Amino acid sequence: MSEPEATPAPATRQRNRSRTRPAIAAPTFLRRQIPTYSFLQPDGLDRLHAQAEQILAEIGVEFRGDDEALDLWRKAGAKVDGVRVRFEPGHVTEIIQKTTPKTFIQHGRAQLGSDRQHAVEIGGDAVVFAPAYGSPFVYDREKGRRYGSLEDFKNFVKMTWMSPWLHHSGGTICEPVDVPVNKRHLDMVYAHIKHSAKPFMGSVTAPERTEDSIEMCRILFGADFVDKNCVILGNINTNSPLIFDGVMSMALRAYARANQAAVVVPFILGGAMGPVTTAGAIAQAHAEAMVGVALTQLERPGAPVIYGNFLSSMSLRSGAPTFGMPEPAMAYLAIGQLAQRLGVPLRCGGSLTASKVADSQAAQESADSLWPALLGGANFILHAAGWLEGGLVMGYEKFVLDCDHLGMMHKLMAGLTFDDNTLAMGAFREVEPGKHFLGCAHTMANYTTAFYDADLADNDSFEQWRDAGSRPADERAEKKWRALLASHTDPALDPAIDEALLDFMNRKKQSMADAWY
Amino acid sequence: MSEPEATPAPATRQRNRSRTRPAIAAPTFLRRQIPTYSFLQPDGLDRLHAQAEQILAEIGVEFRGDDEALDLWRKAGAKVDGVRVRFEPGHVTEIIQKTTPKTFIQHGRAQLGSDRQHAVEIGGDAVVFAPAYGSPFVYDREKGRRYGSLEDFKNFVKMTWMSPWLHHSGGTICEPVDVPVNKRHLDMVYAHIKHSAKPFMGSVTAPERTEDSIEMCRILFGADFVDKNCVILGNINTNSPLIFDGVMSMALRAYARANQAAVVVPFILGGAMGPVTTAGAIAQAHAEAMVGVALTQLERPGAPVIYGNFLSSMSLRSGAPTFGMPEPAMAYLAIGQLAQRLGVPLRCGGSLTASKVADSQAAQESADSLWPALLGGANFILHAAGWLEGGLVMGYEKFVLDCDHLGMMHKLMAGLTFDDNTLAMGAFREVEPGKHFLGCAHTMANYTTAFYDADLADNDSFEQWRDAGSRPADERAEKKWRALLASHTDPALDPAIDEALLDFMNRKKQSMADAWY
Repeated sequence: MSEPEATPAPATRQRNRSRTRPAIAAPTFLRRQIPTYSFLQPDGLDRLHAQAEQILAEIGVEFRGDDEALDLWRKAGAKVDGVRVRFEPGHVTEIIQKTTPKTFIQHGRAQLGSDRQHAVEIGGDAVVFAPAYGSPFVYDREKGRRYGSLEDFKNFVKMTWMSPWLHHSGGTICEPVDVPVNKRHLDMVYAHIKHSAKPFMGSVTAPERTEDSIEMCRILFGADFVDKNCVILGNINTNSPLIFDGVMSMALRAYARANQAAVVVPFILGGAMGPVTTAGAIAQAHAEAMVGVALTQLERPGAPVIYGNFLSSMSLRSGAPTFGMPEPAMAYLAIGQLAQRLGVPLRCGGSLTASKVADSQAAQESADSLWPALLGGANFILHAAGWLEGGLVMGYEKFVLDCDHLGMMHKLMAGLTFDDNTLAMGAFREVEPGKHFLGCAHTMANYTTAFYDADLADNDSFEQWRDAGSRPADERAEKKWRALLASHTDPALDPAIDEALLDFMNRKKQSMADAWY
Repeated sequence: MSEPEATPAPATRQRNRSRTRPAIAAPTFLRRQIPTYSFLQPDGLDRLHAQAEQILAEIGVEFRGDDEALDLWRKAGAKVDGVRVRFEPGHVTEIIQKTTPKTFIQHGRAQLGSDRQHAVEIGGDAVVFAPAYGSPFVYDREKGRRYGSLEDFKNFVKMTWMSPWLHHSGGTICEPVDVPVNKRHLDMVYAHIKHSAKPFMGSVTAPERTEDSIEMCRILFGADFVDKNCVILGNINTNSPLIFDGVMSMALRAYARANQAAVVVPFILGGAMGPVTTAGAIAQAHAEAMVGVALTQLERPGAPVIYGNFLSSMSLRSGAPTFGMPEPAMAYLAIGQLAQRLGVPLRCGGSLTASKVADSQAAQESADSLWPALLGGANFILHAAGWLEGGLVMGYEKFVLDCDHLGMMHKLMAGLTFDDNTLAMGAFREVEPGKHFLGCAHTMANYTTAFYDADLADNDSFEQWRDAGSRPADERAEKKWRALLASHTDPALDPAIDEALLDFMNRKKQSMADAWY
């Protein structure tokens, strides 16, 4: 195989040659050039961290069905009582800070005939956007809401590959419900590899599926490269409150053992899997994420890992999960600060909403999720595009609307520059008071890059908009995703690797009877 | 009349007795309890401020048609050359910082039979939300887009009065196009007084209309009270670039002379009324706003005044104005820091959008405007609710959707509290790992105030939502505004004052022939 470079050229400097819009170039990942927001003062952060350590010392965390994890904790000096593990204050923090990489590179595959490689940096001031993950359903305006299929899955991989504003292919973008449960992971990993060259995530739903995901990466990148470099992520949810079930902790350890990055994500809805008060829920999320991160370092010191956050609220009227509300926004900001103090890469939710369709609610809740994720310093933003209905649905129209929003955020994260050109004293000399800048030399020299050129925002006059059919944004988005999908071409893959992957898949599939649950 | 107290009780502690929702109480204004966001470093702010001063020194600002303003500048030591005024670096800043109040109270009228008074603080960490301003058109789902009428105007005053999340009645919420141009201001000011007790804004479109607006306040509050307290605001746009036309500067001086607050707002679309590069446009906006603020202090030292910002971008494809884009978001943040350094109350745009209807685009752009306004430290947020189509349209559905979003922002701006209850160690002791918090004592004790209870977000299951008609948010909003409007009752007004106001209005109206342009 044609191996990517282990240390790629700085990815933000690489420009997408196929871009058609002049205003802003799409980088392989985004580098935040504006500061994070200091939402909490140090004393508030101290209290939250101390509370997390008190939870770990007094209540502890249970590891159910994974004796090897209990052994690792015992050897590390934690107090193991049955499946319950308790930790002296400071112990978990110490394990994390001793060996956890502050930042790492995840590699995308090589493209035959191109030297462009989609490596992403994760951690520090890097920001990586990935599509939504895990929905059983999909939605588009024409066909409505339905179970996801492998075709839908491939469609989203393809659109993600074509979008300049997503850096990462994600994982289970939607469930391909038409493929047997025990074989899906093979088709999903293969689709990520075949139809995209952006980095991706593997399976976590059973130990052998995790191993298959990693094995396919060994075929793709070479076993030695995989042992030395991160090429796949695995998303590990805790079973909140305060439990790691064996399937999850084994998948976590399998990724770490292979020197691949687990994303450790407490999934907490305040009032259900955690306290209803946001401060307490943050402390719990911090405790759970820290324990998971620490376990990766016991399994393989120095393994890449991402500290994750998925904390939201619920409706006080119905108990239904709610997204994009002010309480999780505050949690995003606070958890961002806690992760930054700990010195670990942070995953945070992206464009979340409880809405069923890409309406005003969806956009408002998504923006109210994305702002605190970005200002909180999130490095890996899963669910950045497509998410609807609390994660039950992957939406086609929502996907392209979110992508356009992510493009705007690229511009925001680049910040302002100050130099003679941007400060424009020459323009003020050229244009007299009361005159306009429309055709002045400074405007002509700068207008192609001055403003983000939104794909889906309609800025026409009312009459133009009316005469074009009075279409709201979700209708315009339908046209857009169809065009995006139609524009897809597979990035060229070495035929020998392709054949080896297919061979692996077929052998695996033939070795098992179909399982549908 | 029953005078309001000159120094009201701290308004955030007053609770709305008529509230029906338990989750959060509506204050007469919002106090920001979270920090502002340090978007730019001090050196960037220094460069912007220095650039503004260079513009004022080298290019200057023109005052056209207002000799008294030129006289004031001449006496203050500025260089007056025809209508062009130039300023030594530091001169304008010095005038501002010498006498401008950092914060002031604007009073709402008394309500007969109630001691609740809607005084708002403007400046410091206070935040005041007001509806959108100035649109000739209105839109609702049933009747579509049409010219605004006095009935529409009254409807929005009434809904603003009923909304717990708007603190201020605003000004020209929409143009009552069915009333003669030269008489509209009388009906608008009267409607604000009659149908609401929240503070409001007066006319600026002609000197006599400004005077009438202030005179009606003298009838309402008493002349002596008005001379000593702020009871009305006037929104003054500069004629960017770098011009104050006489109508505006005379209105500005009239408000200041009466000890009322002008809101000085450069209206700049980058590439048209200012440079296409955002840094240059910010410097220009800062220069123009500073000059306007300084002029109020020459007219009457110590007069309340608000430094305003209305900077946006344009479509590079069509030249049409765009809103909610990343460049104005950065400008909001930077200008917030500049105003804070200057020590003046800041007005910033609120829920802005170019969209024609309350769709995904509208919500996304509005959120992307509101976040930087709030994190930038804006004190008076005009256009917080209802704005559509770049300000050409006041939307009924958009209004209530925005109000719900403002409610969320109340929760966000309150920040997190840390105490034994919110940190919830007792809840962790009560609930074992793997159990749920739904019915635990801590949840029961806290659930009514834990989360913002959104009016218009649908968090039901897909099936419930489908069976209720598959309504997107804007359809739900239609029902909501009709209910809000139907719930309106006028706050009781002293009949003697009412009669005096009507008498003033009628005499004024009879003194003029109708003018329709």
